[in-house]
Amino acid sequence: MANANIQLVVVGNFVHISETNCQEIAYLHDHIMIVNTSGKIVFFDRGNLADLRKEYQFNEKDILAMTSGQFMIPGLIDTRATATCFPMACTHMDKKSFDWLENCALPAEAQCFDLNYTERLMQKLVKCMVDNGTTTACYLMSMHFDACSTLANITIKKGQRAIIGKTCMDRNSPYFYFETSNQAYESTVRLVRTLRSRVSPLLMPVLVLRLRQTTTEKLVQKFNQLSKDLGICIQTTMAQSAEEVKIAFKMFPNNKTYTSILDKASLLTPRTILAHCIHVTDEDIQLLKDRNVGVSHCPNSNISIRSGIFDARKFLKYNVNVGLGTDIGAGYSVSILNAIRMAITTSKIISIGKVKETAYQPISNAEAFCMATLGGAKVLGLDKRIGNFQTGKDFDALLIDCNVDNSVISTFDFDGLEEKFQRFLYAGDDRNIINVYVAGKSIKSN
Amino acid sequence: MANANIQLVVVGNFVHISETNCQEIAYLHDHIMIVNTSGKIVFFDRGNLADLRKEYQFNEKDILAMTSGQFMIPGLIDTRATATCFPMACTHMDKKSFDWLENCALPAEAQCFDLNYTERLMQKLVKCMVDNGTTTACYLMSMHFDACSTLANITIKKGQRAIIGKTCMDRNSPYFYFETSNQAYESTVRLVRTLRSRVSPLLMPVLVLRLRQTTTEKLVQKFNQLSKDLGICIQTTMAQSAEEVKIAFKMFPNNKTYTSILDKASLLTPRTILAHCIHVTDEDIQLLKDRNVGVSHCPNSNISIRSGIFDARKFLKYNVNVGLGTDIGAGYSVSILNAIRMAITTSKIISIGKVKETAYQPISNAEAFCMATLGGAKVLGLDKRIGNFQTGKDFDALLIDCNVDNSVISTFDFDGLEEKFQRFLYAGDDRNIINVYVAGKSIKSN
Repeated sequence: MANANIQLVVVGNFVHISETNCQEIAYLHDHIMIVNTSGKIVFFDRGNLADLRKEYQFNEKDILAMTSGQFMIPGLIDTRATATCFPMACTHMDKKSFDWLENCALPAEAQCFDLNYTERLMQKLVKCMVDNGTTTACYLMSMHFDACSTLANITIKKGQRAIIGKTCMDRNSPYFYFETSNQAYESTVRLVRTLRSRVSPLLMPVLVLRLRQTTTEKLVQKFNQLSKDLGICIQTTMAQSAEEVKIAFKMFPNNKTYTSILDKASLLTPRTILAHCIHVTDEDIQLLKDRNVGVSHCPNSNISIRSGIFDARKFLKYNVNVGLGTDIGAGYSVSILNAIRMAITTSKIISIGKVKETAYQPISNAEAFCMATLGGAKVLGLDKRIGNFQTGKDFDALLIDCNVDNSVISTFDFDGLEEKFQRFLYAGDDRNIINVYVAGKSIKSN
Repeated sequence: MANANIQLVVVGNFVHISETNCQEIAYLHDHIMIVNTSGKIVFFDRGNLADLRKEYQFNEKDILAMTSGQFMIPGLIDTRATATCFPMACTHMDKKSFDWLENCALPAEAQCFDLNYTERLMQKLVKCMVDNGTTTACYLMSMHFDACSTLANITIKKGQRAIIGKTCMDRNSPYFYFETSNQAYESTVRLVRTLRSRVSPLLMPVLVLRLRQTTTEKLVQKFNQLSKDLGICIQTTMAQSAEEVKIAFKMFPNNKTYTSILDKASLLTPRTILAHCIHVTDEDIQLLKDRNVGVSHCPNSNISIRSGIFDARKFLKYNVNVGLGTDIGAGYSVSILNAIRMAITTSKIISIGKVKETAYQPISNAEAFCMATLGGAKVLGLDKRIGNFQTGKDFDALLIDCNVDNSVISTFDFDGLEEKFQRFLYAGDDRNIINVYVAGKSIKSN
């Protein structure tokens, strides 16, 4: 008798980063993946399909046998999807950090008071992200409760795993876009309650403070309490641009390091998702490690708005958890594949400049791929649930086909699994992502 | 009576770099483009279609009216397509310059003695390039006459504009891949004759010396004579990596600059296409300008194999002609759109590093787009024929559609022509290139 508890059995090749070795990509041939109806991986190993069928009692029709050109990778994770800025992508590439913030990002956020606009925008964005293989995104929305709620409806319907937060700032706001400390706090609490009331295991809230400099002490304290009480992450930005660093030290004198400013505000905890962290010292990085803070590295954004150059190698040396973010809008691409390539590009350019430090190695394919999957999961505090193919975790995965019709990848007779994966990593696109699974469910065509 | 001399009339929006202003992108609304049966632009301006029809007597069926989501740009130009290395793309991204050359590039070239292999490879590559909008490519092939000839057959059949050369080295060759000076010269002469005998206006020969260091004085002199007598360009490489520079100064002592080594060999002329030119001084750049040498900038290759960082701004400041190249293989992408993005990325990263030179500006969209079109044409000595939409030039163009089904670009209601173009530039791909014209003929589906 078939076991109603199994929804999917995948047979073929898998590529991921294992729990124990982030330095190498695990190329797993001829594996069998069994996923139960809760979307969890109950078996992942080599094995005899007939024997496993006896043991797990799955249906023949639930078996997906991948072709030799196909393989699966874990779903990609965007640790910083600045959803409201999506329309500004590509079209303001001459702007620098502060100019971008004031003249693009903030007006784009303010626009989201318009729910019709927001709904159309988010439909487009979420579809685009899923098409590009982003199974989990940490969304930074505008201050508007309704806009956040609208996005939640869309991600639930699409089946994407989403962590959604309303971006708060209760000082130094522009005249066209501000709220009081109480408004910021109250509507955040309301949003957290609303998102949790949806009882979707794929939907989670996040608290968002734009910057320490745009937040009052009072709001920081309230957010810290909320984060602690409810176990919710706080996402904020640190050291994105040199100008921002200057302002920080001016506003918070008597601090030797930027991190000490945040540390004094109790903003460095394992629940902190800290974006950018470009203009930092070794001391800063050490403290981020000590506090077990997760860092969201957004290479396309960093370069596009010229905020600075993030030295990923340094963070990895200190064993800081680093994930990738599109920071879409400031970054021109919605794709985490692009973020992988830009992270490697940035790191290679740093390494070229280190003429004397010959031992300096740019980040490898494995390290960049880890940031896009398991690393991102760690940053979001979700590595017990997602990030790689581990028994007990949710099955968030992409079915990759290098030989799909109209593929932009050129493959060759001599390509093994490793070459196919590398071609996908550097040259593949959404066409090669022929299916997207979140918690075992196919969501690409939702 | 219809005039048999007109083959195509295009009505709508066009985007290009004008002959007189490389600093700005010309966004031309509601223009009419008339192309004769020789593939030449005979009219390009605003105008009254009915009046023009009387004047040029074209057929109704030859009118292409672009939709509002569509526009045309000049065909993209790849000034350095190292065709033989195509299979190595994406799969050796950990290799550095010399390691790449010895263990990837040279073995891949040597492989092209196998004509079956070469034919399949070149079919794949040329299709891929045309799909990605490369209407003109300067192909660097292996030393094998037959391989070059095979590629020529394929580009002619496809209708792509191609400049093809066999790569020569008559010293310091690896044991598995070498020829004598006479063999190199004789088969080059034979190739030039063969390509010219094809009487295709789209096919041209180029002389290729791998490096000054791998060429004897004798061969250089013979090539210079050939270049002068027949008006054929010579493509060679200079200052790609720091190691190469060291070897150059060791082999050619009594030279203060790298360019002086090439200059003494009479290798710096308006017919020289000089690839890479990364590790150069201001004096070098000035000499390149004085000699009117064209430079092939291959940003993806530079970064991927970590050969160095090309400072495009400096070359533009000295008014050197710069085109873009994929250097495919060492570079992971066959697309000149990717080269545009990588050139801008590189330049932005340089600008971020110039903390004190606040006046330093990274290259703009216009400058990068120019390198990909008119700049590339100048580098290849073809700017009288291609590079932009100028009456009298050949009509090499791409029909871009931002709203095509399955497009990866997200467009918005408020997008004008400028925004559409920018979204294509940063986020578009081959799907948005819905037609490719070379000398007036549509070649995408050939």
